[in-house]
Amino acid sequence: MRPNIDRFRKDMEALARIGRVPEGGVARFSLTPADLEGRELVIGIMKGLGLSVRVDAVGNIRGRRQGRDPTSPIVMMGSHIDSVPNGGDYDGPTGVMGPLEVVRTLNDKGIVTRHPIEVVVFTDEEGDRFKKGTLGSAIMAGHMSWDEVRGLKDADGISFEKALEAIDTTGTPGEVVLRKGEVKSFVELHVEQSARLEEKEMPIGIVEAITGSSHKRIRVFGKADHAGATPMDRRTDALVPAARMVQEIERIGRSDPAASLVSTVGYLDVKPGAMNIVPSLVTFTTDVRDTSPDNLAAAMKEIDEMIARVAGERGVEFEIEELEYTAAVALSPAIRSTIADACKKLDIEYMDTASRAVHDTSHMAHVTDAGMIFVPSVGGKSHSPDELTHWEDIRPGLEVLYEVTLALAGSDA
Amino acid sequence: MRPNIDRFRKDMEALARIGRVPEGGVARFSLTPADLEGRELVIGIMKGLGLSVRVDAVGNIRGRRQGRDPTSPIVMMGSHIDSVPNGGDYDGPTGVMGPLEVVRTLNDKGIVTRHPIEVVVFTDEEGDRFKKGTLGSAIMAGHMSWDEVRGLKDADGISFEKALEAIDTTGTPGEVVLRKGEVKSFVELHVEQSARLEEKEMPIGIVEAITGSSHKRIRVFGKADHAGATPMDRRTDALVPAARMVQEIERIGRSDPAASLVSTVGYLDVKPGAMNIVPSLVTFTTDVRDTSPDNLAAAMKEIDEMIARVAGERGVEFEIEELEYTAAVALSPAIRSTIADACKKLDIEYMDTASRAVHDTSHMAHVTDAGMIFVPSVGGKSHSPDELTHWEDIRPGLEVLYEVTLALAGSDA
Repeated sequence: MRPNIDRFRKDMEALARIGRVPEGGVARFSLTPADLEGRELVIGIMKGLGLSVRVDAVGNIRGRRQGRDPTSPIVMMGSHIDSVPNGGDYDGPTGVMGPLEVVRTLNDKGIVTRHPIEVVVFTDEEGDRFKKGTLGSAIMAGHMSWDEVRGLKDADGISFEKALEAIDTTGTPGEVVLRKGEVKSFVELHVEQSARLEEKEMPIGIVEAITGSSHKRIRVFGKADHAGATPMDRRTDALVPAARMVQEIERIGRSDPAASLVSTVGYLDVKPGAMNIVPSLVTFTTDVRDTSPDNLAAAMKEIDEMIARVAGERGVEFEIEELEYTAAVALSPAIRSTIADACKKLDIEYMDTASRAVHDTSHMAHVTDAGMIFVPSVGGKSHSPDELTHWEDIRPGLEVLYEVTLALAGSDA
Repeated sequence: MRPNIDRFRKDMEALARIGRVPEGGVARFSLTPADLEGRELVIGIMKGLGLSVRVDAVGNIRGRRQGRDPTSPIVMMGSHIDSVPNGGDYDGPTGVMGPLEVVRTLNDKGIVTRHPIEVVVFTDEEGDRFKKGTLGSAIMAGHMSWDEVRGLKDADGISFEKALEAIDTTGTPGEVVLRKGEVKSFVELHVEQSARLEEKEMPIGIVEAITGSSHKRIRVFGKADHAGATPMDRRTDALVPAARMVQEIERIGRSDPAASLVSTVGYLDVKPGAMNIVPSLVTFTTDVRDTSPDNLAAAMKEIDEMIARVAGERGVEFEIEELEYTAAVALSPAIRSTIADACKKLDIEYMDTASRAVHDTSHMAHVTDAGMIFVPSVGGKSHSPDELTHWEDIRPGLEVLYEVTLALAGSDA
């Protein structure tokens, strides 16, 4: 008996039906009705597998399979089920339903491991509701405090603390933070969100490092004027310099010789936003990432200087606000070699790779030995309704995860 | 006896009290309760002056002072009383209450003119309710048909046709269109909405031409991708080329040697608009204006070609949709010299100028000899609660309008 892709698929498809939107893909923003329905589904599966379920004070779901030695450190696996707008079905859920299928296989075989196993669903990884991602794992790792996050507001002014009232939680925010020695290891199974495995026809990627990222909000201030009556040389248009900044941010991203840097403007808003009024305020965000901390720092500095230079040339005021900074993380060599050993045992090819997306593992890697297993994404499409990984391409991931879990949790006693 | 600025001011202030909003300025959108109240006020003043009032099938108010020769062509004057959101008190009302004060002065003096005089209030000049401006004058001039406008809907889904049920009208939509020879001339008194008169300390501007304008909507289609995981050279970002287009549109506006061209991107929307997703769709508008039809056509062509070129270079699809095109209009040399003669007679300085805003006169100029008289705007502020013209600066406008009316309508018989 090995992990069964059809059972996994059934769980994945049940989740994918929740929060579908007419324009395509799913919208399961954290702690909204669709997310609550997804949580109910996962908790139901966990309970069906005999896991004891605990939802901590910030909504992280922890499903525990007891070990022979209940006080020994936890072998933890997990990911998230919240999505971006028009999100795909694999980013997150694969790393939740995969470990649950591993547990199901252990149950089938009647295996009792030495270490307890926990499958975790982290709250709000994507960050689309409260505009701050990896909330649950950051708090669990002690990287964000309750006081920093409780007041975060969504677009309707509802705070994170208020939103949490929609679910039943246990314990205090302080108890969310992992105690020293509480966890032995953390492994996240995830779709690659890039096309390198597909191109190299590699079934498994072992993540060596996760990108660091910088998110900032930039405001450019101009002056509203009548678009007909105000001559070109009398204007202080906020959009024209902002448009220049957008282009420069892309140019800086492309100029990295290592091609590991990415820089994106994904959000841009123009006020007052009328066809016949010169823009007075443009707000946009920057998303800059690199697996090299030095490269990332250099790019951030170059962008800040460029913004000041363009604003100066065009005579506009500006503000730069840091929203979030996540340092690049090297993953545990011990876990990487455990994953490689599992691949060898199963005769599955693998390659070392880097993750350009931030994951819950980015935080967990600071508090325990952590690793990530990637399976291929068709065309590398991600954060899109077109996101796709064939079920047959997830099968090797499930089998490797199963072997890794056995190796970490200890079965032969 | 000359036009009396205090009586004019009283009428202006009565209208300015109607539709005031707490955030400043007035909101008198066409055929809303505030506009209806304004219409009642104007009709009351017209009737008090002995004018026979007729409201045509699209809501244009025509107040007629009979001439000695009732069948001779009408000497027409007018403007509008509807406003933009948070609009000022002078844009429109000056050209309604001004002619009414001219009529009042004629009454005081017992003058009977040869030609009938009509003061017109045009329906929905600003276009903020049904998103299409100069409705009443465009229909009167035969530039828009009833079938084109009857179904226009406001934000609540109420059609123009339905909104017209709120007022008493006479005749059919077909009868709104002026008959050949029905009108002898049209003159609009208006605040400048620009600061050229103020800067040159000129009390009167005689408008030589009204700007033509082109409004288009451009869509740039890219592909949504994960902002972290998708390498720079694998992206089809819709925003980067759109940002280039925004800059080029401004550059084209600035490159006009005559400095009469203006080109603006006032609205720009990014989808999906998430910080961590490469933009898949950018929608923006262009507003391009010039008093020279050839210049305007050349700029529109240059912008269309530039959009195609930039899209081609970046491998994105695009669509250009024309929203509204108003041709540039040269105003009647005969009316311009009548206005200049009036200024000379009254010993009032004047300058020739151009209007960069579209007015009801833009349409009327196609069906009769038409002219515009500008008085200064403080700081050129317009479409703003800060719009201001001092009463003393309107006085010369009233006096010139009176002389022009006498000259056109013929008093000495």
